[in-house]
Amino acid sequence: MAGQIDATLEKLGIILPEAAAPAANYIPYTVSGNLVYVSGQVPFVDGQITYQGKVGQDFTVEEAADCARVCALNILAQVKAACGGDLDRVVQCVKLGGFVNCVDGFGQQPTVINGASDLMVEVFGDKGRHARFAVGTNALPLNVAVEIDAIFEIS
Amino acid sequence: MAGQIDATLEKLGIILPEAAAPAANYIPYTVSGNLVYVSGQVPFVDGQITYQGKVGQDFTVEEAADCARVCALNILAQVKAACGGDLDRVVQCVKLGGFVNCVDGFGQQPTVINGASDLMVEVFGDKGRHARFAVGTNALPLNVAVEIDAIFEIS
Amino acid sequence: MAGQIDATLEKLGIILPEAAAPAANYIPYTVSGNLVYVSGQVPFVDGQITYQGKVGQDFTVEEAADCARVCALNILAQVKAACGGDLDRVVQCVKLGGFVNCVDGFGQQPTVINGASDLMVEVFGDKGRHARFAVGTNALPLNVAVEIDAIFEIS
Repeated sequence: MAGQIDATLEKLGIILPEAAAPAANYIPYTVSGNLVYVSGQVPFVDGQITYQGKVGQDFTVEEAADCARVCALNILAQVKAACGGDLDRVVQCVKLGGFVNCVDGFGQQPTVINGASDLMVEVFGDKGRHARFAVGTNALPLNVAVEIDAIFEIS
Repeated sequence: MAGQIDATLEKLGIILPEAAAPAANYIPYTVSGNLVYVSGQVPFVDGQITYQGKVGQDFTVEEAADCARVCALNILAQVKAACGGDLDRVVQCVKLGGFVNCVDGFGQQPTVINGASDLMVEVFGDKGRHARFAVGTNALPLNVAVEIDAIFEIS
Repeated sequence: MAGQIDATLEKLGIILPEAAAPAANYIPYTVSGNLVYVSGQVPFVDGQITYQGKVGQDFTVEEAADCARVCALNILAQVKAACGGDLDRVVQCVKLGGFVNCVDGFGQQPTVINGASDLMVEVFGDKGRHARFAVGTNALPLNVAVEIDAIFEIS
């Protein structure tokens, strides 16, 4: 029997990616008490990096919001792994930390990170509403456009 | 009967702003256990954005520290809302995360963010002492000079 | 009788620095519940700042990873202080937040921050594995190359 969140994902036509395995001495998530700390996720799709470039130069705000959504799907894959596969154990999305690789003077980081924030609420409803920061940066790993980390509370 | 922290605020001549309402699917704060996670706050004053520009170019270090203080006032407004209006429930300011929109090579982020750190200790005394990071960035939302997020422990 | 982690440090030839004292109204760490929040650490060695410059211009990736290791040693010094001197109380390294002062387009922040991540696992074994973000920035305090903050769980 699929869980309620799995049913929501199916209704939304969202297939979560495989949770990427650890690549080094840092790992994709840790659990402390009932909090899951998810490492900064970048726009990997099927093991391939995507969205390499700067927002405001190589990508529009809309494209960057799509990139943020891809990062958020990778966050959800890690949270699902942390929950032993059962996303119904999510109590709330506590916080997102959003970094946008952008040109100087770019000021629409909130609209970019909304691509991730909106996904959380689509999937979890009010449990998906979260605190966050959305800031710019001059450089990200592999020159990706967006990196997002997260804290979730689970039961 | 006003609380002790409200009395301190009055003595300091500090009137907290209204806590800004959620603008999107992210919200100004979340509560998990006894921790309040406050979203990144920018220098809104009476609903108007202020301090738009780069530190080391458009603003001096002193002006930027004032900007950090304005961000911190907005943090306190959110913490007050999270406490149901009673700031005496604050156990400690656990952490501030400070981002300074600055020119390359600028190195006085700590002095800028002291504008927020100092306010916390003025208001809460030793309970206001906190861990923090203070870093630079090439771009912030709406081109503001400073963005600060926070974690508070409440009872 | 030395603790197990102290013995590991000795075997690795690692002498932890003195935990730097608070320099302002922010402090080097706070403890909330069983979590230690460590302030952003920069490459101080014996009270002197080191590694001042930009990665990809003034420092190679390898040099920057050494800088990250120095930051991580300062983190461990603060965690030891938070544990009352007994690092055996560390349950896990929960999260590192890594900022790399780098030129535009630099994309090897993960390799840089591995200098810190690797140290955690050398010292704590599996308890040292952590979530993290690794991002770029155009400017850091005192123009250092790397700043890292941390969350640890202790018993």
